[in-house]
Amino acid sequence: MNRIPSHIGVIPDGNRRWAAGQGLAKEAGYEKGLNPGLELYGLCKELGVKELTFYGFTQDNTKRPSIQREAFQKSCVDAVEMLSKEDAELLVIGNDSSNLFPKQLIPYRKRTKFGEGRLKVNFLVNYGWQWDLSHGLSQEVKKNSSSNENIMTNIASADISRVDLIIRWGGRRRLSGFLPVQSIYSDLYVVDAYWPDFKPQHLYDALEWYNQQDVTLGG
Amino acid sequence: MNRIPSHIGVIPDGNRRWAAGQGLAKEAGYEKGLNPGLELYGLCKELGVKELTFYGFTQDNTKRPSIQREAFQKSCVDAVEMLSKEDAELLVIGNDSSNLFPKQLIPYRKRTKFGEGRLKVNFLVNYGWQWDLSHGLSQEVKKNSSSNENIMTNIASADISRVDLIIRWGGRRRLSGFLPVQSIYSDLYVVDAYWPDFKPQHLYDALEWYNQQDVTLGG
Repeated sequence: MNRIPSHIGVIPDGNRRWAAGQGLAKEAGYEKGLNPGLELYGLCKELGVKELTFYGFTQDNTKRPSIQREAFQKSCVDAVEMLSKEDAELLVIGNDSSNLFPKQLIPYRKRTKFGEGRLKVNFLVNYGWQWDLSHGLSQEVKKNSSSNENIMTNIASADISRVDLIIRWGGRRRLSGFLPVQSIYSDLYVVDAYWPDFKPQHLYDALEWYNQQDVTLGG
Repeated sequence: MNRIPSHIGVIPDGNRRWAAGQGLAKEAGYEKGLNPGLELYGLCKELGVKELTFYGFTQDNTKRPSIQREAFQKSCVDAVEMLSKEDAELLVIGNDSSNLFPKQLIPYRKRTKFGEGRLKVNFLVNYGWQWDLSHGLSQEVKKNSSSNENIMTNIASADISRVDLIIRWGGRRRLSGFLPVQSIYSDLYVVDAYWPDFKPQHLYDALEWYNQQDVTLGG
């Protein structure tokens, strides 16, 4: 493997479809995504990936039935709990002025080092692309400036770097609002399997594909 | 075909790779993209597509050698000339405060009806995603407001609607800055063939695939 992406974005989709396929209630799928996340984290750390961003849940998602909402909120809290026993520098980003943002995650709105740190891990929690971009607007208004260069530094997710590779499980070929600014030049790799069926080979296949892509940044 | 997308985005990539493969100079590829564009337009009109957005060239692209830049600028002007003989409502959007925006296209910064109109056709010309988004910032500063709801209405491309399906030729699986706000929920279909090798079947395949996708808008 020649070219390892510095920053991988993860869209762990398909939990509900997986659960339905198993004859389970839809909300039962989310907790089945916890171990895959930990496994993926471990593989990325080994490979030398520098930053990993997980799409936890979005403001769009919170319109779903409350039993599902409570299940994915809990899974995000549990994921952070699991990660706290590893080496990571954790940042949780999302609209924290809402009750939908789990209180247990408030301490992690500032990047927090666990163990030896090393790998930056970002969780998007109660995240919304409009919330993210409009933060830039309100910052601009406060400063009453209007520079054209400030998008990257004024969005709410400014502490998250450009994403090189986005891997989406669950077969959909779309971004669904995942970090619109940082994903401008990202390569998108889609795995048809549902996220709870994660296998290391999915990551290896994505990296092999990524290795064959060029990096032009639009040039 | 059950579900026809209202708005299709077109990323006509691979012109230079096509030219190189034919033993031609890279810049010779752009004019070979003109007839494919007209053919695609005609098919979309027949199918009842309401809006079509072509990725002409970006501010990123203008960093390329000037012989290439002049070739793709000319192709955009020629494409509009060809379209002016058809039925369309044309809008050209891009950073027009620069010399890199072809003067001949200035009249089309306001939507202009050709023939019987019907299909909206947008060309992104000297377009930049930062330029597009930061327009929203500067509008906000002028009004000194800071509503969170204004992203869609204040971006420079506010007259372009949400894109349902993006078809990218040339094999790359990325958006490369194509309308970041309107493409938040777009389905992305990638054709490996280079754009000058466009065939109607590419469109039909994309539509058949699109027809199997769901529309959740993140919900």
